[in-house]
This record gives sequence, C-alpha cells and structure tokens, in this order.
Amino acid sequence: MSAHQKSSLLESYAAGRWFRASDEGTPLLDASTGEVVARISSKGLDLGEMTSYARHVGGPALRELTFHQRAALLKELGLHLMEDKDELYALSYRTGATKRDSLVDIDGGIGTMLSYASKGRRELPNDTVVLDGALEPLGRGGTFVGQHLYTSRPGVAVQINAFNFPVWGMLEKLAPAFLAGLPSIVKPASQTAYLTELVVRRIIESGILPEGSLQLLAGSAGTLLDELTVQDSVAFTGSAHTAGMLRTHTNVLHGGVALGVEADSLNLSILGPDVSTDDPEFDLFVKGVVTEMTVKAGQKCTAIRRVIVPDTLADDVVEAISARLAKTTVGNPADESVRMGALASLEQREEVRKAIQSLRSSAEIVYGDPDHVDVVDADAERGAFLSPVLLRAQKGAVEPHDVEPFGPVSTVLTYDSVDEAITLAARGRGSLVGSVVTHDRDVARSVVLGLAPWHGRILVLDRDDAKESTGHGSPLPVLVHGGPGRAGGGEELGGIRGVLHHMQRTAIQGSPDMLTAVTGRWTTGSERRVEDVHPFRKSLAELAIGDTIASAPRTVTRADIEHFAEFTGDTFYAHTDEEAAAKNPLFGGIVAHGYLVVSLAAGLFVDPDPGPVLANFGVDNLRFLTPVKADDTIAVTLTVKQITPRTNAEYGEVRWDAVVANEAGEPVATYDVLTLVAKTWPQD
Amino acid sequence: MSAHQKSSLLESYAAGRWFRASDEGTPLLDASTGEVVARISSKGLDLGEMTSYARHVGGPALRELTFHQRAALLKELGLHLMEDKDELYALSYRTGATKRDSLVDIDGGIGTMLSYASKGRRELPNDTVVLDGALEPLGRGGTFVGQHLYTSRPGVAVQINAFNFPVWGMLEKLAPAFLAGLPSIVKPASQTAYLTELVVRRIIESGILPEGSLQLLAGSAGTLLDELTVQDSVAFTGSAHTAGMLRTHTNVLHGGVALGVEADSLNLSILGPDVSTDDPEFDLFVKGVVTEMTVKAGQKCTAIRRVIVPDTLADDVVEAISARLAKTTVGNPADESVRMGALASLEQREEVRKAIQSLRSSAEIVYGDPDHVDVVDADAERGAFLSPVLLRAQKGAVEPHDVEPFGPVSTVLTYDSVDEAITLAARGRGSLVGSVVTHDRDVARSVVLGLAPWHGRILVLDRDDAKESTGHGSPLPVLVHGGPGRAGGGEELGGIRGVLHHMQRTAIQGSPDMLTAVTGRWTTGSERRVEDVHPFRKSLAELAIGDTIASAPRTVTRADIEHFAEFTGDTFYAHTDEEAAAKNPLFGGIVAHGYLVVSLAAGLFVDPDPGPVLANFGVDNLRFLTPVKADDTIAVTLTVKQITPRTNAEYGEVRWDAVVANEAGEPVATYDVLTLVAKTWPQD
Repeated sequence: MSAHQKSSLLESYAAGRWFRASDEGTPLLDASTGEVVARISSKGLDLGEMTSYARHVGGPALRELTFHQRAALLKELGLHLMEDKDELYALSYRTGATKRDSLVDIDGGIGTMLSYASKGRRELPNDTVVLDGALEPLGRGGTFVGQHLYTSRPGVAVQINAFNFPVWGMLEKLAPAFLAGLPSIVKPASQTAYLTELVVRRIIESGILPEGSLQLLAGSAGTLLDELTVQDSVAFTGSAHTAGMLRTHTNVLHGGVALGVEADSLNLSILGPDVSTDDPEFDLFVKGVVTEMTVKAGQKCTAIRRVIVPDTLADDVVEAISARLAKTTVGNPADESVRMGALASLEQREEVRKAIQSLRSSAEIVYGDPDHVDVVDADAERGAFLSPVLLRAQKGAVEPHDVEPFGPVSTVLTYDSVDEAITLAARGRGSLVGSVVTHDRDVARSVVLGLAPWHGRILVLDRDDAKESTGHGSPLPVLVHGGPGRAGGGEELGGIRGVLHHMQRTAIQGSPDMLTAVTGRWTTGSERRVEDVHPFRKSLAELAIGDTIASAPRTVTRADIEHFAEFTGDTFYAHTDEEAAAKNPLFGGIVAHGYLVVSLAAGLFVDPDPGPVLANFGVDNLRFLTPVKADDTIAVTLTVKQITPRTNAEYGEVRWDAVVANEAGEPVATYDVLTLVAKTWPQD
Repeated sequence: MSAHQKSSLLESYAAGRWFRASDEGTPLLDASTGEVVARISSKGLDLGEMTSYARHVGGPALRELTFHQRAALLKELGLHLMEDKDELYALSYRTGATKRDSLVDIDGGIGTMLSYASKGRRELPNDTVVLDGALEPLGRGGTFVGQHLYTSRPGVAVQINAFNFPVWGMLEKLAPAFLAGLPSIVKPASQTAYLTELVVRRIIESGILPEGSLQLLAGSAGTLLDELTVQDSVAFTGSAHTAGMLRTHTNVLHGGVALGVEADSLNLSILGPDVSTDDPEFDLFVKGVVTEMTVKAGQKCTAIRRVIVPDTLADDVVEAISARLAKTTVGNPADESVRMGALASLEQREEVRKAIQSLRSSAEIVYGDPDHVDVVDADAERGAFLSPVLLRAQKGAVEPHDVEPFGPVSTVLTYDSVDEAITLAARGRGSLVGSVVTHDRDVARSVVLGLAPWHGRILVLDRDDAKESTGHGSPLPVLVHGGPGRAGGGEELGGIRGVLHHMQRTAIQGSPDMLTAVTGRWTTGSERRVEDVHPFRKSLAELAIGDTIASAPRTVTRADIEHFAEFTGDTFYAHTDEEAAAKNPLFGGIVAHGYLVVSLAAGLFVDPDPGPVLANFGVDNLRFLTPVKADDTIAVTLTVKQITPRTNAEYGEVRWDAVVANEAGEPVATYDVLTLVAKTWPQD
C-alpha cells in the first residue's frame, strides 16, 4: 500500500476525504539516488472548502473537549505513531537522512507530541479556558475586580513547514494548536512531503483525532492565504525570503491574520576565553560544532553557522574541527557506516555552493571542497552530496553575519574580549540559538546576558552538563523555539507558552460573582455557600464551587504557643521571649508561630471520619498577614475554589480558598489548600 | 513662560537639548475657538542622532538600574507631576476637553505611571532580569536544566500617539517601556502636541529620569522608521489606515522592528436578554452608552459604537438614550455647565460627518443633527462642535460593523438570541472592548466566553459592581489594553505584561550551577554552601545565594502524631485510626500530618536568638511528596534561593528553598520559606 503511494501522486486530506489532484503533478526525487519517490500537486483542491471545514467541523468538535481530553488524545496518538515508526524510518532515507537524522525527525516529533500531552494534563485545567495571572482588585470595596483569561480562537491554524523535518516540523506545530482547540491545515514543503503525507495517512486511519481537526495540503498553497481572516493564524518555518512575501499578504497586513515566523538564522557557538586546549570544554566545543555541521547535512535552522573563538585558539580549533570532519563519511544514508547523508535536492546543493562562494569574499576555506566529495555506497553525481566545508573569516568580515549556507558549512571568527564576542553575536541581527562553552560562571553570566536579547535559546555547555545535554541544535518541546529579528520574531513550543499563542488573552471586569460564573473558579469576594453537610463529606461529583466551611472559633493561648515551641523545637524568640519579642519591629511582643496558626486552622476545618477527601497534598501562597497574639481567637473559612477531575484516576484535585481571621475579622493568614477527593463516595 | 510657549513654535527634546525647527511650522488651532495655540514642525531635526542618543546614552543608563530603582523614579515623577497638574488642566481646555475629559487624560495618565511604579516594586525582582515560569528538568540525572528569562532589549521604544489623549497616551506607553529598561522617543499627534510638550518639559526640568531615557519628537516623524533596527519597537495608537502604512515599512516587514498597534475599533455594549426596563441594569446600560458617546466628545478608541439590544427593547432603549442625550449641553469646555466640548478640529468633525453619512445607508438617525448643534458660551462655526448622534440600524446592516465615526455617534442594533448577539459582535472583526449589562450569571458566562476571542477587555456590568465600576471605556493600567484584528492586534498595559512586551524571552539551558550564576537565583541541584555560622545570623548584606542550613535529624513518633492530633484538633482518620488509614489508597496506614512535618522542620532549622531574620511571612508551593510514617526520621535542608532588598525599608525578602527528607533520602515535603531579613545586623 504505502509502497504504491510512494511512487504515485500524493494526496491531500481535505474536508473529510482524500483528494487527488487533476494533473500529473511534479516529481519529487530521492535525495541520494535521483529516483522519483512521488509526484505532488494540489491542482483542483478547494481551499475555501478546507478552511470552512476546519472552522465549522474541526474547530467546534475540538473546542467541545477540555484541555485534559485533548491531551489524552495526543497521548493516544503519540503512542500509536510510535508503533508504526519503522515504515517512517524506511521512507525517511529517501529524504537524504541517515538513521540518526531520522531519530531527530521521527522520534523527536512524536516525543514532542507526547510532551504536550503530558504538559496539557499537568499544567492546564480540565476546562476550556485558562486563567492568566492573579485577580486584580479594581475598587476598594471589593465589588469590582478583574481577571485575565485565555480563550480558544474560533479560527484555523495554517502550518507551513520546511523540507528538513517532515515529521517533527508537522507535529511540533500540530500538538500545541490541537491542545489550544485550533483545527490545523498542514502544508509541508513539497520536497519531502511524501513522508508527511504518510504520517497524516496513519493519523487519519487511526481515527483518534476529531474529524476536521487535521487536514493536509499536499502541493502548492496557492491562494490559501486569501481564505484566511481575523481569527486565523499562519505558522511558517522556512526562508526569510518567503517569510517576507507572506508578511506582505493583504490578509496579514490588513486582515488581522496572525503570522508567526521561524526563519533561517546565523546561530553561533562561542568558546569561552577561560578554555584551554587541555580542558574538556575544548573537546565539547569541537564535537558540538562538528555535530551541528553534519547532522541532517547541516540543514537545520538551528545549526551553528558562526564559530566564535578566542584569537589565540583559532588555529587549534580549526585543526581539531578539521581532523574530526575528516572522519565524517558521506554517502548513502541507509548505509550504517555513513555519518552524513545527502542534501535534500540538487537545487539545494547549488544554493549552498553559491552561499559558500559569497562567504569566500571575506573568508577562506580551511576544510573541504564544495565541488568534490568522496561518497560511500552512492552516486556522487545523481545524489545531492556535499563535503562539509569549514571557513575561517578575516577580522571585520561581513558575509558570515549575513549569508546562511543551509548545509554542512560553518565559519570560524575570532574575538579578543568577551565584549567583542557579544558584539559579533549581535551582528547576526537575531538568531534562534546561541551556545557558549565555558566552565567559568562569570563568563557564562556575561555572555548569556549579553546574548539573550538576540536569541530565543542559549545553551551553556561544560563538563557538568555535557553528558545529559541535548546539544546546541535540538529544540525541546518544553523550551521556546524561535528568535528575534532575522530569525523571524516568532515563538513556538515552550510548553504551555506554545498553546497560549493560539489563544486570545482578554481582561474580564465585573463583580466577584460574575467572575466566578465566567471563569468557573471561585473568585475572592463572591458568594460562599454554607450548608448543613460538611463539604468533606461530598464527593468530587457533589462538590460545587463556593461550598464553604465556616469553622468554630478557637482561642490561641500563651500556653499553646509555649507548648508548640517546646514540642516542635521552634523556640524562635518571637514566640518565647517577651522582652526580645517586644523589640522586633514587626511583632512588638510574643506572637503565635505561623505554623501553629495553620495547624490549628486544620484542626478547625477537618472532618475526621473516612470520606471522599483522601489527602491534603499541598498548600499554595500562604501569607501571614497579621500577627496572632496570645489569647487572640481565630476561625477559618474554607471555600471550594477549583475542581479538577483527573481523566486517569478515580479522584481529582480540589483547591480550597482558606482565610484564617481573628476576632476583629482581620485576616491573619490566607492560603490555598490542595486536596485529592474521590470522584464518588462511598466508592463502588 | 508656558503662556509664551503656547503661542510659539513647539520644541522637540532631542539628544539632550531642546530643538527648534528651522521653519515657521504649522499652526495648531484651539478646538473650540479656532485661535492659534501653537505651531509645530520637526524640520531640521536629526532623527539618526535621536535614535543613537537613545541607544548609547539613555538605554545604558536605564539598564544600570534595577526594576525597583526604575519603579522608584516613576513614583517620584508621578508625584512630581501631580503637583503641577493645574497648568496641564488649563492648557487641556484648548484641545476641546472638559474638566471631566481632562481627568481621564491627566490624572488617568499620572495614575497609570504610579500604578506601574507600584507594580514594578511589588511584582518584579530587585534585579535586571525576570525569570519566567518554572525550572524545566531536561535530563533525568538533574545535571541539565532549563529556565526561561526575560532581558531588556538594547533598543529604542518609539511611541506614536493619537491626538485624543495627549497626556495619558504618552504616559501609558512611557511607564512600561521605562520599567523595562527601554529609552523612549515620544511622537505625539500634532493636533494636541502642545499639551504633551508641556508635560515633557516638566519631566525634563525635574531631572528625575536618566538623561536620554525620554526624548520628544514634535512634528512629523519623517524618516524615523528608517533609523530603526532589530531591537527597536514602535507602539502606535491611531487609525487602521496609518497602521497599515507602518506595517509596510521595510524595517517592519524585513528589518525585525516590532510594531504594536492599537487602532480604532467598533466596540459594543450588549444589553442582556434578562433585563427589563424596570431593572437597574436598564438604566446602567443607557447611562453607559451616553457616557461613552459624550466623554471626550466620543473621541475614544474604546467608545461604544455598536449598541446591541434585544429586539423587544429597542424602542425603549432608543427613547431612554435620546432623553438623556437631550440633556447633554455642548459648548465651551471650560464652562462648568457644559457636558461635552468640541471635537479636536474642524477636519475631525468633517470626518465624523462623512462617517455618519455612510452609516445612513443602512441606519436612520433617531437622535441629533450632524449639521446643527446648540452651543453654550462658544461659537458653533469656529469651534469643532457636533451634536451627539444616535442611529438605529436595519436588520442585516453592514456599515455599523465597518464604519467608525470617531465622535459622539453610536448605532443601535438588535438581536433575538444570545447567539445572534455574539454573531453581531464578531462582525466587528476584533475590538478593544466589549461590555455586557446583565444580572444573569448564565447570560454573562455565555456572552463573555463568546465575545472573548474578539476582544482585549470585557466589562460585565450590573447592580453589584456598578458603584465601583470604572465603566466601559476606561483602560486600566493593571488590565490589558488592545484587541485582535481590526483593533490592531497589539497589547499594552496589563501590569507587568506590558513591561515584558519590551523584553526578549530566552530559554537558557545548562547545569544548575550555571543557571544559578546566570539568573542570580539559586537553582535546584546547584551548589549548597554549609558554613560554621548559621545563616539566620547573617544580615541581608552578608547572606549569599546558596547559603545552606543542613539540619539535625528528628524522629517522628506515633506519640508525636497522636499528640499533634489532639493538640490541634486535626484528628483526621489518617493520623489517628490505624484500621481506617490502612484503607486509604494513598497512605496505607497512619501518617504524620503535613502541618506536623513542616512545624517540626521549622524547629530543626530555626536559630532561636534575636538576629537579622525578623519574620517568616509566608510559604510558597508546599507539596507533600511522600507520607511520613511513625518512627520515620526527617531532616531539613534550607538554602538561600533569592535575595530581594527593599528600596524603601531597612530589610529585604529572602526566599529559602526547603526540602524535608526522610532517612532514605526521599523528599517528603518541598517548599519555599519567605522571610524578612534586616539589611544590617546588629542594627545601628
């Protein structure tokens, strides 16, 4: 089946069915052999129908689900794809990728989806809106308050991907959009679209995702942007040139379509001035550069293009990198002895050769020949093979900061001070990632803070983290991916940050009761409901936002304080020595321990018998606001603030708002109590 | 002095000196009288010198200061401007503003600055970087971790303001940029620039802000955008038309200049289907609409343009609004009997008349005459006076969702279901603010969640919050201001959110020790320093990140647990009843109270004698990870995580990382302990 599809016309998945173009399509060639892998065309595809289907079928279906439900589907899908990945690896060779390259693309892509599944369940509420930040009091009387929240945009997420990561590129955009409740239209770069099509085919066959939440546009995007409007977004990864064209589309300029861009960038790695050739950091630096030059044959938007080293070490660095590059076998990516496969296409190789030619106006080649490479188990003419090429720039060179060779090519530049290194970095006008290899903490701080405004991600590499480090070039799902300026100015991934980019942040103003109704979370100042039954007797299904325990009072005696001090060993003078405590500028006399106050409060609100409340697993935002003195009387009010059923357990989390007040009604302590509560009680 | 300036050529403040243009300039006319107030020109101004001065003088000076130091300067400046505001009010009349209008502009502007001063001190660290989110473990061994942080962009914040709020418009952009460490170049709209110039003159004279952190461009911005580059930003408030032109500037399209836009928008207010004419909400709705039509003569980007009411109430609403509008006296804004002043200029009035004409193709005027108005104490011909105009649209009307009359004009539209109301709202293609007047919680929830993706702010107004409500049209410094789509897609204010928009978010990866060095905050896994002296004996000046207390062990006996239960009253079965506790799915037997564990931990780490540690004022993120059973032995490790000196007190905050572990080394509880510590000890 898939063998047949490989050599035939790729199909789009549009409006609930597979679509075959009305023409022959353009041939897509195997990167190493030049054979036709598949043909591609979107001729006749109804793009308006696709966007409409996403808006009216996929979007509404997705937004019926809570974040936890969406996360559960992503997990199911990720595990399903893991089972099928052998056929993906087999097809991936045809893109020029070695097995190591495919690991980044295929396992990396599925891993990103699973990471989002996990983050979604752990860090988002089991709801459809996300609250942002704290409640803002807007009036002194407490009747008018504000709360920011995020809602899903009722639009379409269009994802235009680059050729270099046909699997990861799709999944790293799809997962956050899906979690955010946005239906996706995926448009892969044609060159490697056959691999993306295979993944989409497996996803659709699985039936796991709601119909309409994923569509595939194989071939030219044509007039897709003409179909987009204010709630839609385009996430683009590719060249700065194409990004520039997208930016001038009228729907982006004037129609409110959000455009996020990850463009090529001139990433750098800096060798710290503290490192000598004998240090482990020297080897780590050299290995890092060579890895970034050769993985995916350097076709990574995060690859190191600028190798920035101290003047005094330049010769050593060039020698060490060259020696390592000399061991890099190039050839048939399916051959296990091969370290570096082919570029994606012969056209791509021509582009890289042109870039090298530009770089040569201010740099000399110190390793490799752009026009010749020895290959293993392959035909150097038909396949898009290229030798790794290392250049060394003159001082003051301009091109290395401006020309991006999208292949196995890096340029060595030198500096004589940390300030000069930072200045060189800034000349790239914004990059996705920088790294600094140093074992000196002051160097790390100076370089990182100097580089940070110019980068989306910075790696500090040394002997301590090398073993676990994922390296310079690997975007991670939990960290932001993107960079300012030349790198496009976009931001993807970063865990939940990547989800929120698809949502609209809105400030809601109203009375506490209205904010409770709108947000689904109890808002300070809104109605508390005290009933005859103790809320600890209610199961998760029975509990409601606002259910409240108003405790009996308890007087805290001097004897209580003395006893607590003795029992716990916390004999801090403010609890035990009247004379010394009187001099404390905040207390002016003996006060009860904060821990005594919250311990007694628990004694006041707990219902002792076995029941649905299984455990108190934590406390958040505990603040001691007013000292409790001997013979003060306290009482506690505990109110259900948020209820989060777990999708994968027989219980859920209940967050309670706790206020301990003294007899004058002043709050002495406020905090959130976190409990686990059984979904039903008594349990079956 | 200021009287002289009023009738003379306005000056720019550029590169450390006041600059006077080399030509006569364009006259700026009093909105009500047509007299010349001032003249304006930027001819001869060296824009390259201004941006260079901001980058090399103002920016570095600002970024030497911590957030708390910057906040203190904003506070000082805000209080200083409050003293001078009489002359601002006097000059403000000439813009056509009544005293009530000027309150929003002048007190509102200074209040925004003071709000930022307060937020900066309370919510930002006393440092120059801001950490974002939690530490991300990146490897199982704990040697490789990630942390997001924000750094100040080393660029220029250009602020292009609208004519309607010459004071607030400047200060609401200046304050967050200043707090973020960005030097500002303020370019007011010419029409009312004389008032902005006066404020800037007072600010510069005060000498409070670092030189170069504020410059003023009076007159045409000319080629200012040509001077901008990747770390620079433009915050624009004004028409969608001008915004569209800025978006096509090559430095925005291809040069990495960040452009934020607040454009005019077709804001709406919805009267809930639950409201009858007898309800207080009916009057609140009518008052709200009339206020928004008449304050600033409706020249507010947040004013209500679309009045959306149930079909059945349309006649009543029109009648009630009209009755109230009939009482609105129009005329000389300095006359205390006048409720509504003039539009900013005769040209502006022509624009509004044209917009009304467009609206009339699908709506009829039900109140007011665009060509005639009775004025008080003024000349209706020379001043830009206009009657409030209310229109009522036909069903299916297009223009009310598309044409923005930037004056005292609103259009009534009707709906027959909440869904239709939401659909009408969405036809505005993105607005700054929407409001819904309802006393029904379900209506509030449906309407707010339906409207939220289309709005930056939503007000729910009812009898409960009306008294304290700041109304539909008032942006607040603590809430985001901006909206999607047609409203520009920008976001300003929102407390610290508005500061972070000026900063770059970067993911930092490295070993815990390196992250501690880079962030200035102790990172889990990094070095702990145990010395002979107990850290509670150290003053804030002596304490260092990483200083650690490793406590002695203590065994928790069954007797301790029983005693604690009895003493506190927390006799929850998991602590007292072996048989019942054994059935608890999480514990499987008697466990110590979480509060007992943290109380004993305090007993283990506290140093009892008077010393620099003044108080424990709170606990954050307490999580109970492993149950403590009878006869388990616990010990606590307490490490200095973050040190925040207060600029306005003799002490500061120290955040300690606390880990309580059992004898197997498993963490049983983790939390942050918050203390106040004297800056010096013994105290002078």
